[in-house]
Amino acid sequence: MIPSKYIENAVNEMASLPGVGRKTALRYVLELLGRSETEVERFADAIRVMRAEVKLCAQCNNISDEAICEICTNPSRDKSMICVVEDIRDLMALEATHQYKGLYHVLGGKISPMDGIGPGDLHIGSLLSRLSEGEARELIFALSPTMEGDTTAYYIFKKIEKACADGLSVSALTRGVSIGDELQYADEVTLGRSILHRTPYDKSWQG
Amino acid sequence: MIPSKYIENAVNEMASLPGVGRKTALRYVLELLGRSETEVERFADAIRVMRAEVKLCAQCNNISDEAICEICTNPSRDKSMICVVEDIRDLMALEATHQYKGLYHVLGGKISPMDGIGPGDLHIGSLLSRLSEGEARELIFALSPTMEGDTTAYYIFKKIEKACADGLSVSALTRGVSIGDELQYADEVTLGRSILHRTPYDKSWQG
Repeated sequence: MIPSKYIENAVNEMASLPGVGRKTALRYVLELLGRSETEVERFADAIRVMRAEVKLCAQCNNISDEAICEICTNPSRDKSMICVVEDIRDLMALEATHQYKGLYHVLGGKISPMDGIGPGDLHIGSLLSRLSEGEARELIFALSPTMEGDTTAYYIFKKIEKACADGLSVSALTRGVSIGDELQYADEVTLGRSILHRTPYDKSWQG
Repeated sequence: MIPSKYIENAVNEMASLPGVGRKTALRYVLELLGRSETEVERFADAIRVMRAEVKLCAQCNNISDEAICEICTNPSRDKSMICVVEDIRDLMALEATHQYKGLYHVLGGKISPMDGIGPGDLHIGSLLSRLSEGEARELIFALSPTMEGDTTAYYIFKKIEKACADGLSVSALTRGVSIGDELQYADEVTLGRSILHRTPYDKSWQG
């Protein structure tokens, strides 16, 4: 139906992106077709160079232009805390809050037998070696509030029980009612967890 | 916020596509980052080659891998009819109906003073020369049912009034109630036009 094999090809590639159907892919391709050749070269190059040059940090698996990422090399970050996240986007979301000054460890996913992802497919081994080096005093789970996220946290927790006995403390993101949410519309599990793990109220709650 | 200038760069380029925000662009880029280098090279190449190789048909401005497109060179197409469309996607939509066997002329947009697009920005001159060659006996407007589409059709119509006197017939896509629509929900203008330009009823209405 598309009267050009080059367009057809480019549409197929675009449609391989997550959430992009053929109609949207065609829209992208025809828009690019309307740009100058130099602009399209720059577009294609940015993607090619990105894949060729971006590394995963050898310590925490964050994306990085160097062998060790900016967060791991930053002397002002607190090396006694490691926050475990599934995905680089979760790390970015936490960084955007400006509330956390420790280090990270990106697992690269969560344990999900339904999708055929077991512990061996995640960066759990490297997390355990980091913990065995002994610099970290606290491990923070910042995983999805889903069964897979909980399973992953529990799996790691079982692996580090000995380290916990040696003084490593383990925490997790608070589950609770989102700020701005109406209480009556919060789901039962969240609300139940929220009152069970209620937080001491003090001055820090003002803004 | 993104800890890599290469990713930043690729995200900026992706976010330049129509309807793509930075969050979606980041999702695309991180997905590409997860692919093999060969796969990403193929992705980038498909786009680069598409821009470098695709031509616009010298006759009708349809996209084409050759100087003249497949439709214009197809001997079984009816050269006495030219259907005027705004965009290549409109041509594709009409082709997908398998109901039209004539030729096309892609204007590359519609007259839209608000967007600074005048008649000189469209392929109207080349349409007039095609008509002056005299092979076409019918011109069909398949433009958007909007003020811009109507303005564009009227502008072209004024330009070819002399040709009409010489026997060129001019038609336009029927405006009417969409098949499957409930009559009571059709807008007034469409419904009004639909009864004013009512169509003779015959056997062809069955299916």
